[in-house]
Amino acid sequence: MTQAPTAAVLLIGNEVLSGRTKDKNLGFIADYLAALGIDLMEARVVADDEADIVAAVNALRARYTYVFTTGGIGPTHDDITADCMARAFGVGISHHPEAVAILTAYFKEMGREANEARLRMARIPDGATLINNPVSRAPGFRIGNVFVMAGVPRIMQAMMDALAPQLVRGEVVQSVTIEYLGGEGDVAKPLGAVQDQFTDVTIGSYPFEHTTGFATNLVLRARDRVLLEEAVKAVEAMAESLRVAGKNRGWRRV
Amino acid sequence: MTQAPTAAVLLIGNEVLSGRTKDKNLGFIADYLAALGIDLMEARVVADDEADIVAAVNALRARYTYVFTTGGIGPTHDDITADCMARAFGVGISHHPEAVAILTAYFKEMGREANEARLRMARIPDGATLINNPVSRAPGFRIGNVFVMAGVPRIMQAMMDALAPQLVRGEVVQSVTIEYLGGEGDVAKPLGAVQDQFTDVTIGSYPFEHTTGFATNLVLRARDRVLLEEAVKAVEAMAESLRVAGKNRGWRRV
Repeated sequence: MTQAPTAAVLLIGNEVLSGRTKDKNLGFIADYLAALGIDLMEARVVADDEADIVAAVNALRARYTYVFTTGGIGPTHDDITADCMARAFGVGISHHPEAVAILTAYFKEMGREANEARLRMARIPDGATLINNPVSRAPGFRIGNVFVMAGVPRIMQAMMDALAPQLVRGEVVQSVTIEYLGGEGDVAKPLGAVQDQFTDVTIGSYPFEHTTGFATNLVLRARDRVLLEEAVKAVEAMAESLRVAGKNRGWRRV
Repeated sequence: MTQAPTAAVLLIGNEVLSGRTKDKNLGFIADYLAALGIDLMEARVVADDEADIVAAVNALRARYTYVFTTGGIGPTHDDITADCMARAFGVGISHHPEAVAILTAYFKEMGREANEARLRMARIPDGATLINNPVSRAPGFRIGNVFVMAGVPRIMQAMMDALAPQLVRGEVVQSVTIEYLGGEGDVAKPLGAVQDQFTDVTIGSYPFEHTTGFATNLVLRARDRVLLEEAVKAVEAMAESLRVAGKNRGWRRV
């Protein structure tokens, strides 16, 4: 099987770190990439600081197939992402003719002045290609394996749709959840034995509070459906034998 | 003025990266640290992978006053955080007598077997001190400048309360928001001028869709209240002159 593409997310902006904004972009991108069979391996949140942004994007782009950034591409002084990407890639930055045309037409349509600040959003690192923004037009861009998007969720989401056709997809990871009505402590040892038996299936245990008491979701993930089903059957057999032994209050595949 | 303490958050777990779980811990910790005057500088999300966890915690603990981790301290095979912390600090790991006592008493009270898996939660890196868990008893721990907490939000939140008295606090950053009913493009240049004038105030611009059209929140942040108020007054004067010039639909301090 060919290796699945990998990815990292880099959220840029003081507002997430200060607590002012509760990030919703990471969860959206995680779901989006999962549906494309791309493995999200890591995420980072950094402030609007040039050195931090450059260091993070260089670390991530060297390691993963793709990097997706959000935030910092507006017209104000705190929007420094485009300059940081140019510096990270060691290229220049200038007004991109196509971006200028898109923005000029939009501002005219909206009756807004195409001032210096607004046209700052057309400054794109040399060699980058634009990502269409159907919401507010100011484009994102792709440079190398890095996709640079807006931070406003609705715009970022539209940009993901726009750039998705460029992505190499992997086989989608299949997932099955067993809702297990019992303590993690009783299931841990036999579950570990199932994990040891099925090394190509990733098994996670996520405790939660059920109305009947402590419970845990046993989540099995694999690209191979047949193998996954074998592992699920092994977990179900384990859960059932623990139920018979009075160690849980029931279980079900959800 | 003494330098404020700094911090990083490290979220550990496949479930956030797979999209299965939408993280709520980062926002909570960000708010919590802001209220203590501790500057959250960076956050990372890594998978349940030993090398990745060790590398991340070592990078972060070298750079910031404190590191707060969540996730991976339960009894199942995918809970590897304690071992990773021992490896990151180059120390051994063993059953901590106090943790064993806490857990044994709890399991007895709950009528649960104090089995090997459950007592795995008492394995604590050598030299670490415990963080009390009033919800489900299995403790977190502090090693060096790293605080290791559970991933379940309610437990993590209780652990933050338990560990907070150990933290050196900073002066709290004060924040004022001006809701500006107009496009970012018109405010960008004069706002940048205010930022240049007040280099010790951090000014951010966060666009959003208001019922009346495009709008932006202008957020000013500083530790010095007097300086902050001067900068706010400068932004208000700027907003008012733009309003008089017909460049916005109004503004207000919120």
